[in-house]
Amino acid sequence: ISEKRNADLQSMMQEFHYADIAEIADELDVDEATYLIKLLESEKTSDILAEMHEDIREAVLKNLTAKEIAGELEELDTDDAVDIINELPKEMVQEVISEIEDREHAKHIVDLLRYDEDSAGGLMAKELVKVNENWNVLTCVKEMRAQAENVTRVHSIYVVDDEGRLKGRLSLKDLLTTSTKTNIKDVYIPKVDSVTVNEKGEEVAKIMSKYDLEAIPVVDEVGRLVGRITIDDIVDVIKEEADKDYQMAAGISQDVEADDDIWVLTRARLPWLILGLLGGLGAAAIMGGFEEMISKHAVLFFFTPLIAAMAGNVGVQSSAIIVQGLANDDLKGSISNRLIKEMLLALLNGLILATLLLIFTWVWKGAFTTALAISLSLVVVIVVAGLIGTFIPLFLHKRNIDPAIATGPFITTSNDIFGILIYFSIAKIILGI
Amino acid sequence: ISEKRNADLQSMMQEFHYADIAEIADELDVDEATYLIKLLESEKTSDILAEMHEDIREAVLKNLTAKEIAGELEELDTDDAVDIINELPKEMVQEVISEIEDREHAKHIVDLLRYDEDSAGGLMAKELVKVNENWNVLTCVKEMRAQAENVTRVHSIYVVDDEGRLKGRLSLKDLLTTSTKTNIKDVYIPKVDSVTVNEKGEEVAKIMSKYDLEAIPVVDEVGRLVGRITIDDIVDVIKEEADKDYQMAAGISQDVEADDDIWVLTRARLPWLILGLLGGLGAAAIMGGFEEMISKHAVLFFFTPLIAAMAGNVGVQSSAIIVQGLANDDLKGSISNRLIKEMLLALLNGLILATLLLIFTWVWKGAFTTALAISLSLVVVIVVAGLIGTFIPLFLHKRNIDPAIATGPFITTSNDIFGILIYFSIAKIILGI
Repeated sequence: ISEKRNADLQSMMQEFHYADIAEIADELDVDEATYLIKLLESEKTSDILAEMHEDIREAVLKNLTAKEIAGELEELDTDDAVDIINELPKEMVQEVISEIEDREHAKHIVDLLRYDEDSAGGLMAKELVKVNENWNVLTCVKEMRAQAENVTRVHSIYVVDDEGRLKGRLSLKDLLTTSTKTNIKDVYIPKVDSVTVNEKGEEVAKIMSKYDLEAIPVVDEVGRLVGRITIDDIVDVIKEEADKDYQMAAGISQDVEADDDIWVLTRARLPWLILGLLGGLGAAAIMGGFEEMISKHAVLFFFTPLIAAMAGNVGVQSSAIIVQGLANDDLKGSISNRLIKEMLLALLNGLILATLLLIFTWVWKGAFTTALAISLSLVVVIVVAGLIGTFIPLFLHKRNIDPAIATGPFITTSNDIFGILIYFSIAKIILGI
Repeated sequence: ISEKRNADLQSMMQEFHYADIAEIADELDVDEATYLIKLLESEKTSDILAEMHEDIREAVLKNLTAKEIAGELEELDTDDAVDIINELPKEMVQEVISEIEDREHAKHIVDLLRYDEDSAGGLMAKELVKVNENWNVLTCVKEMRAQAENVTRVHSIYVVDDEGRLKGRLSLKDLLTTSTKTNIKDVYIPKVDSVTVNEKGEEVAKIMSKYDLEAIPVVDEVGRLVGRITIDDIVDVIKEEADKDYQMAAGISQDVEADDDIWVLTRARLPWLILGLLGGLGAAAIMGGFEEMISKHAVLFFFTPLIAAMAGNVGVQSSAIIVQGLANDDLKGSISNRLIKEMLLALLNGLILATLLLIFTWVWKGAFTTALAISLSLVVVIVVAGLIGTFIPLFLHKRNIDPAIATGPFITTSNDIFGILIYFSIAKIILGI
């Protein structure tokens, strides 16, 4: 399609939403995508760039001059512009910024670059509508009109004092129904939720979704209004957070995708597999220690994968519930209560499973004592696995370490080792060897 | 605190946001929470109820009369009211609805009750601002003012024709800057994204976050505007979806929380554990089939937990990446390309891990041939595990089954069995027994 029929392409693309064009561009190769971006007017292409897949955008940006990139950034809200600048090679950032013609916009971008990407400062945009508490309604409306031109969507009108400190917000309704001479001081709503620039993105997400906010103002350390965060950025934070926890639970570090190359994927996956390998070697060493039992009770050794699997599964289940509860902030009560509950739960599950196992093994192998030894160990293994799975994430959380790392191979591996140790120890006692 | 100091409590609670009071209510026992709810005015309590934890809300609602509940519902938007009605016992629903004084509101609620909770119809609210394309700006503004009273936040003004079919939307800016005699027909924007009532919540979430929408109109099968969904409801859908996938991966069916009681948690966890048990029994049976190798090569049996763990880990890793790619809609290309890529990736990881294992086992046990047999099997096991982990979710997705069920114990269990079978078969060939 992309074979020079410019006019057709242009009119075709006119019809599409920029998010759809971004999707199309993601499927093209880099040269075609660059061609497409250069073809369309920059008002649309800037939005397309903002929506495109990071990797492809990075490649396309390499094909554009600093001036072209600056032109695109000028059309974007400051928060999206900063996201794109963060992907540019360092030596190019300076050049691109100096090419931005709107100096106000450039200054805002430079301000925003200071903040950590995952903080409220890194998420916020400079575009907002603010009015001074000492103005009257008439001045206010005039100023608002000028400011609103730069703001895509007006969520709230923020009220600040002479030093720029956030005082409250103004409802559009009140503004339109009061006399033009009224002072803003007398009509604004002094209650407004806000976050400081250093607040973590995750926390901002929690606050916004708890209070059902669509935008939240951001203030600096002394309370001056410096930006605002809108809900669409927060939706992305929530999704990334969920993806991260999910990957951790599956034993994948770093944020990878199915389309990343093999080296990136290996780097994310191999460390956890090595951990699993070490765990397996540990288990092998433990079994080596019980080698003398092999001649009389070979069947015990056949059940080690079962014991390891059950220990791993129970550990993952109980840790996942705790990790999720911590993430959603709805864990109440003390650690010891949690542990007691998990113990009862594991005991219940363990007894049911052990009974099934006992009946099955007894019928299959005919050796009741062996079957009993295996089943009893299973109960203990499950209880211990449940307790470890509950305790480790709570412990990590107390120490301010992300408990999500505990759900994956970490729990599975440690539970494998403990499980097999417990299993053989108990079996040895019961079988009296 | 809750010991009768009503006046103090009332003035204290006045200061709090309803979401905070809801959190406090969640921590109280049911009687105290009921007491608190009855104490405050219904404008606030209805919001508190809507934000409270489901289980506690259900208990509190049992203590209220149908009339009291109806009073609360009257203050709520229709979508939140429907959520609460869905929790009431069936015999009470009729009574509560008949107690709602505002008949219009009651009718809307009854309309919404028809839809599946997870569909666009179940998520939408009836509160919206709509104008007829044949009105002029003046009528339109008057009508809007009346309608806006019932709508907490006006996101868009929707334009419909005489039959109520959605035609487009109107920008507030245009409305204020055109003459009052202009017909709406001439100023509205005919392009508007919408979803139909039967669209799945998940799909609505995808559309809204792709186009960064803050509200989306919902139409029925013939295009008539019937409601609108706001982004705050979608944030909840996204969170639930992520939580569900995460729990599935951890082997927990149903939506459970750490604070649910032991029976509920057992019901969610036990089925997956039984699956694991059966897998373990399968593995034991396979090992029983290779029993004759135990006298000469006992060490092979010590490595079974390692093999099972590696097969499980690799399977979970590769399936998690696929499941996440499917959920985010960014998997492109054919299944066979995916499988080839995963094979190369698993081969790379497998060779690195096998080399480590070979060196370690050789040094430890001194038997090179055995060490080689174990390591070579490990490579094959990892490759097969990776392929199974990639194929199963893709296959389930093609068959319209949620691929998330494949990430958890399902993959682990089948990989355990295959892994051990492959391991012993290859070892047998190499060791020549």
